[in-house]
Amino acid sequence: MPTNRQLILASRPTSLITPEVLQLSESPILPLEEGQALARVKYLSIDPTMRVWMADIPQYMPPVQLDEVMRAFGLAEITESRHPDFKKGDKLLGLTGLQEYVLITGKETRSFQKLPSIPFLSDTNFLGTLGMTGLTAYFALLEIGKPQPGETLVVSAAAGATGSIAGQIGKIHGCRVVGIAGSDDKCKWIKDDLGFDHAINYKHPDWKAQLAAATPNGVDINFENVGGEIMQAVLNRMNLHGRVVLCGLISGYTSQDPALASFAQIIIKRLRVEGFLILDHLSKSREAGTQLGLWKMTGKLKDKQTILKGLENAPQAINMLFQGQNTGKLILEL
Amino acid sequence: MPTNRQLILASRPTSLITPEVLQLSESPILPLEEGQALARVKYLSIDPTMRVWMADIPQYMPPVQLDEVMRAFGLAEITESRHPDFKKGDKLLGLTGLQEYVLITGKETRSFQKLPSIPFLSDTNFLGTLGMTGLTAYFALLEIGKPQPGETLVVSAAAGATGSIAGQIGKIHGCRVVGIAGSDDKCKWIKDDLGFDHAINYKHPDWKAQLAAATPNGVDINFENVGGEIMQAVLNRMNLHGRVVLCGLISGYTSQDPALASFAQIIIKRLRVEGFLILDHLSKSREAGTQLGLWKMTGKLKDKQTILKGLENAPQAINMLFQGQNTGKLILEL
Repeated sequence: MPTNRQLILASRPTSLITPEVLQLSESPILPLEEGQALARVKYLSIDPTMRVWMADIPQYMPPVQLDEVMRAFGLAEITESRHPDFKKGDKLLGLTGLQEYVLITGKETRSFQKLPSIPFLSDTNFLGTLGMTGLTAYFALLEIGKPQPGETLVVSAAAGATGSIAGQIGKIHGCRVVGIAGSDDKCKWIKDDLGFDHAINYKHPDWKAQLAAATPNGVDINFENVGGEIMQAVLNRMNLHGRVVLCGLISGYTSQDPALASFAQIIIKRLRVEGFLILDHLSKSREAGTQLGLWKMTGKLKDKQTILKGLENAPQAINMLFQGQNTGKLILEL
Repeated sequence: MPTNRQLILASRPTSLITPEVLQLSESPILPLEEGQALARVKYLSIDPTMRVWMADIPQYMPPVQLDEVMRAFGLAEITESRHPDFKKGDKLLGLTGLQEYVLITGKETRSFQKLPSIPFLSDTNFLGTLGMTGLTAYFALLEIGKPQPGETLVVSAAAGATGSIAGQIGKIHGCRVVGIAGSDDKCKWIKDDLGFDHAINYKHPDWKAQLAAATPNGVDINFENVGGEIMQAVLNRMNLHGRVVLCGLISGYTSQDPALASFAQIIIKRLRVEGFLILDHLSKSREAGTQLGLWKMTGKLKDKQTILKGLENAPQAINMLFQGQNTGKLILEL
């Protein structure tokens, strides 16, 4: 009987993937029943999100369960079919899993789509540029980043599958594009071959100064794939009302830091985090003041004041704010 | 000659305000020139943002310079005027600074506005509920939070000047409102007097379990004033497509951590940080695929693949992503 080699999630990783995490296993390939098809997996897409799927944390799909075949996106070709929609030789894209054969049954049909055959495009393009990573670059940059001609876009992990496409789409839309990557070879590729305006190797000691020099007008859009120190450096260069497309936080996926795990919820839950300062809204303060005053006068809004006296107590009063010692509005009376 | 007592920024704080940071100084009050007015400061608003103004970091206004009078918002009353717009007894709101008298000259006139006299409202209300903190609560919650009836709103520093108003506006707009504060007295006030649905004292050991119990349907809006561990706990409860109104990060203002300083740029630059997952956009993938394919076929989009072979190499391939060892799309060929 033919066998199917599979990689099983045997334990959850704490950092990188160790031999205890994914274990090779063999299972027999049974004869097909009516309505089933068997496909040979030809290519597997290897993506950072797989590390997230392995972790038992709240996420956008259920984490892979222990002893299950590890989830993966791949391209497979039908070798045998008793399924009405598929015939031998059909190529399919979908969640094949980390295994050599995938059994397709009726209920899983929707998870697979037939690979289009398009001149000039190779099959593997449908795992990258035209696959999930390309679609991610496209929608994330255009819908959240909203690039405008002349704006400065900084892409991290810029030589990766998503970043390399996002940067090029930024160029197509007229942005000045700066890529951050981790080797001189990667930098050369994104600058010379892909047409990025600047490429910065974050392993060079003065890379933050290089980033500043490459973004003389600040940064309007940060297409963020990495997080941590790289994101911090870009945040410090952002312009007023800039957009941060939080697409990945690969520097944190192998960490157990609870601060990173909660920050990753911004991606997992597709949150919008927006900074606010009253300065931008002062021109509308009459409208708000009228409403607030009305609520206050009619008792819908209540307040309390903590009042200290004497100019010399101002330092103590300011410190009270950071020590949780005031309730309501803190005022110094002179 | 009469004198004006002032608090001068003598050195920059590293944590809380120490006696070396703000120093009392006296300066003579000179006779008014034509076009000037003198106002006696009656009330000073004490706000967390003052700690930011003291730090030499990129921010939304220039930091206060050393040896300058410390910036502060206040309420002052004209005692003497040779200014055409102001007469003795007029009450003004504006950046008076931490001092007992403020000299108003022609060019500063725009910075001050006359206090409206409204029945039922005390002068100090214009520093709190109807002042910057009230306006902040109003616009930040309504314009970024966009509260909808039935949604769950969590407010941190909920007994503070801004949080206490934001929570009540949430109630007015029909939200279920949960406040987080740092003492049982504060919790009692926001729940019993202000009408919050739940109040959680984050100093109780099981406060995170209380937060979970108080938000059985998750959190739709986080009105964040604190940052750090409190924000992390709320982020972990957020619902899909939730909004985080980043209004303050008071837990970090007295820290020198560069990660916090860069995160604070989200407020200072009023950035929008938005998480992205391709799952939300798959229904439009035909549109994007056509465009990406066209760009690829016409050479506007270039790509590269890093291809490994053999199922048994999948763990190594996944690790390559986190070690920066691939360029372009990483694919495993079986």
